[in-house]
Amino acid sequence: MFVIVVYDVGEKRVVKALKRCRKYLNWVQNSVFEGEISEANLTKLKMELDKIIVPDEDSVIFYTLRSTRYSDRQIMGLRKGGQDLII
Amino acid sequence: MFVIVVYDVGEKRVVKALKRCRKYLNWVQNSVFEGEISEANLTKLKMELDKIIVPDEDSVIFYTLRSTRYSDRQIMGLRKGGQDLII
Repeated sequence: MFVIVVYDVGEKRVVKALKRCRKYLNWVQNSVFEGEISEANLTKLKMELDKIIVPDEDSVIFYTLRSTRYSDRQIMGLRKGGQDLII
Repeated sequence: MFVIVVYDVGEKRVVKALKRCRKYLNWVQNSVFEGEISEANLTKLKMELDKIIVPDEDSVIFYTLRSTRYSDRQIMGLRKGGQDLII
């Protein structure tokens, strides 16, 4: 499945969050990752992030697309990261 | 259709970008908006943002979900914004 992860975490935790996401997904923009991921790896990523974030200060949103047939992605301006053909 | 917009724009343009997105979508996190939007309004939003951003400095990504039947959204930590029932 395809996942988009956006996070808004405290400055002290940003690098850790980035490193965890980068293990499984593609960096596309500051605090935004995306990519194909297995259910198992998504669970791992969530557990790893759960250990890092401070729940009443930080926010992480996971958008999961079980099929990308009904979605697409358009970039305006600079293409900062990510793969070419995704959705 | 449901849209997720993530932007990474220069500091001088952030407030303008935020105001344009807030006209059409729900703020959910720093530089992240989401919500149901018509094709016409999405086109308007894109045109308005296109006038604001500096293409070789700023980046805006539009994830468009024509059906939310195959997607879901999960929040970890703080729920900063957005509506309750979305996808």
